[in-house]
Amino acid sequence: MPAAYDGWVTIELINTGSELLLGRILNTHQQWLCRRLSDLGFTVDRQVAVPDTGPAIEAAVREGLSRADLVITTGGLGPTCDDLTRERIAALLNRPLHPDSTVADNIARYFAGRGLAVPARTQVETLVPEGATVLDNRHGTAPGLAIEVTPNPFRAGGTCSRLVMLPGPPRELRPMFDRQLVPLLTQWFPDANGFQCRTLKTTGIGESAMEERISGPLKGLTDAGMDLGFCARVGEVDVRFAARGEHAAQQIAKAEAITRDRVGASVFGVEDETLESVIVGEFERRGLSLALAESCTGGHIANRITNIPGASKVLLAGYVTYSNAAKIHDLGVLPATLEVHGAVSEETVREMVVGAQRATGADYAIAVTGIAGPSGGSAEKPVGLVFIAVAGPAGVMVRRQVNRFDRETFKYLTAQQALMLLWTMVRGVPGSPS
Amino acid sequence: MPAAYDGWVTIELINTGSELLLGRILNTHQQWLCRRLSDLGFTVDRQVAVPDTGPAIEAAVREGLSRADLVITTGGLGPTCDDLTRERIAALLNRPLHPDSTVADNIARYFAGRGLAVPARTQVETLVPEGATVLDNRHGTAPGLAIEVTPNPFRAGGTCSRLVMLPGPPRELRPMFDRQLVPLLTQWFPDANGFQCRTLKTTGIGESAMEERISGPLKGLTDAGMDLGFCARVGEVDVRFAARGEHAAQQIAKAEAITRDRVGASVFGVEDETLESVIVGEFERRGLSLALAESCTGGHIANRITNIPGASKVLLAGYVTYSNAAKIHDLGVLPATLEVHGAVSEETVREMVVGAQRATGADYAIAVTGIAGPSGGSAEKPVGLVFIAVAGPAGVMVRRQVNRFDRETFKYLTAQQALMLLWTMVRGVPGSPS
Repeated sequence: MPAAYDGWVTIELINTGSELLLGRILNTHQQWLCRRLSDLGFTVDRQVAVPDTGPAIEAAVREGLSRADLVITTGGLGPTCDDLTRERIAALLNRPLHPDSTVADNIARYFAGRGLAVPARTQVETLVPEGATVLDNRHGTAPGLAIEVTPNPFRAGGTCSRLVMLPGPPRELRPMFDRQLVPLLTQWFPDANGFQCRTLKTTGIGESAMEERISGPLKGLTDAGMDLGFCARVGEVDVRFAARGEHAAQQIAKAEAITRDRVGASVFGVEDETLESVIVGEFERRGLSLALAESCTGGHIANRITNIPGASKVLLAGYVTYSNAAKIHDLGVLPATLEVHGAVSEETVREMVVGAQRATGADYAIAVTGIAGPSGGSAEKPVGLVFIAVAGPAGVMVRRQVNRFDRETFKYLTAQQALMLLWTMVRGVPGSPS
Repeated sequence: MPAAYDGWVTIELINTGSELLLGRILNTHQQWLCRRLSDLGFTVDRQVAVPDTGPAIEAAVREGLSRADLVITTGGLGPTCDDLTRERIAALLNRPLHPDSTVADNIARYFAGRGLAVPARTQVETLVPEGATVLDNRHGTAPGLAIEVTPNPFRAGGTCSRLVMLPGPPRELRPMFDRQLVPLLTQWFPDANGFQCRTLKTTGIGESAMEERISGPLKGLTDAGMDLGFCARVGEVDVRFAARGEHAAQQIAKAEAITRDRVGASVFGVEDETLESVIVGEFERRGLSLALAESCTGGHIANRITNIPGASKVLLAGYVTYSNAAKIHDLGVLPATLEVHGAVSEETVREMVVGAQRATGADYAIAVTGIAGPSGGSAEKPVGLVFIAVAGPAGVMVRRQVNRFDRETFKYLTAQQALMLLWTMVRGVPGSPS
């Protein structure tokens, strides 16, 4: 048995699947596994995707074993002809494959429970490389496999690497990771990295402006080894602190306090929170209600709000008033207003927001009207022009923006601005967001 | 200048970004770029993600250059401290960085157009490695960069590799790839791989049932070397044909004809078409109008319809009637109907769809009411229960479904079923979709 691990854990993730390299599917394993590992205090040093061919899989695994303490593969354990991971790794490590009767029993039980005969092709799934630990698959047929590669023929000094093969389907991989791999990780790496991470979600300040405002005040902490990272999204910037070692939690708490002190009005949440999730949460806590009147965002805001459990207690109604007739009929916008000022105007958005509030009796209402494009603009009212209004107990606030982007980005960014305006009014943060 | 490329093009994609390895974001670049390249006749041999550290970026680029004809990096070109790609690659290739006045002008114009001063930090984005080609960024500040690495110090015989650096934000990367990199690829690799791919989009038949129905009839083609692939998505199955060589186009056309003959009623589109895009296209061509009344999907259908350019000519109005009051006020549902049958019932969905048609005068209307969950279900009406109605010139059709999924999947799948029901009625395909 190799000695317990007593240092830094380097990890590589290898995703097999030709469909990944053909761009036919999104690699959700990467995010899911990396996130889970980082929540456990580990970080992944490299992720590689290769097609379902023997040489590509073998090369990636050999390279991973030459560098990393832990190599995790996904996919290629199933029964079809393009499932080569098990066989190729067994050959690479010179470990004969033996049929395992426990695995065969599990597979038999899986099919019996569905009233089906065991397909002959699943026999290959019962094969286990010599010395490997079996990770039961409770949601499918192919088990996961864990191997302690020691001595490791691909690594300087023969240093031990652990190699774990997980099945491709997410509904099989995820519970297997949580229930079977996590205990193994704790056993293999009892003294793990102690990595900690914290993300602040911000809106209203661009990426470079954000860095200009906080990197100076945080310099003491970054000089002491804390990582500071930025990730720009549409209408948002994530600020990420990461640290290791015994002072990690303390460093991160200090960094968060400094950042909130400098740009607190722009911080709307942490980790996976979204503007819509913090808004629905706040409205629910305070028993407030909301109505929406969307022209150019076309239901995008309603869709995001209703993605959040609890939205049914908050959202009274949404109006997607794409046509002038709907603005008049549903929101009571005056025909004269549309004629004189046009559908995309401050006057119209004010009547829309007041109309939505009146029709529903909601405490707060959002209205947006604009030109999403790609056509429909003019010199005076260009594509991207949008008026956003929020009505609340304290009155109506209106913003004019020019969001010159493709259609979906336009809708997303306009929604961000509208939700931020609502959030600002509901929280009573002084001043309007920049 | 290196000679024109005359063989197989090997490609490696390197995604930089610590947030990828920390599992904070999904790597959408991988799918998008791999997909675009395969549509152009190229295939990606390997994809690697590394954190934003100099050594990790350098190691991945060096390895890529040792193997591939084309190496594409994403990310790390911005103005913040963790943007190291440009600098590290310039150092690796021993190419000094020089300020480029055209890039500086573009950046100045970008900020001037937004009424902002140029942040000092963006100066680093004007630096261009000696001999690199600049790829203009029309949607941001950092330009892309393309370098012909010849002689290539990392590859046997010094064979030329092309290295392209693209910016991280998708709305900058995507148009840059399409408008600026595609012409370069055509110039570099005029005789490209000749890979062809075709995807049929289907709905209403599961993945294994689809395979059972078409794999036999397609056996002659797959035996002859054509690849047949399936990709199951929520409420959809993609059927993918891929082939190489001089008969590729002919094989794929034959496969498509055979498949349409067997399961044609389920094929709603090809490649990147969606149910909403084919519906908006058909409505626009035929001058038809649409109204939506959404309860449990909460604006999801309206959002998808309004993502399609041309939707403003088609969609008259959408109602997100989350509350009973809104169903009564906006759609004219009778209070007695809600009281006797409940909000989630065939009777209510019929009154909703007729009410939406009456309020707007639309040719067609969709209504949905159901229980998205996670709470709100009962023994008689479980979480996931949904009623879908479509009204058209020929009358009203109603479907009852039980979609037991998480909230967002529930909304997506319910919308798929509603859009497929609409599509079936509009196209007059006989029988109801399975």
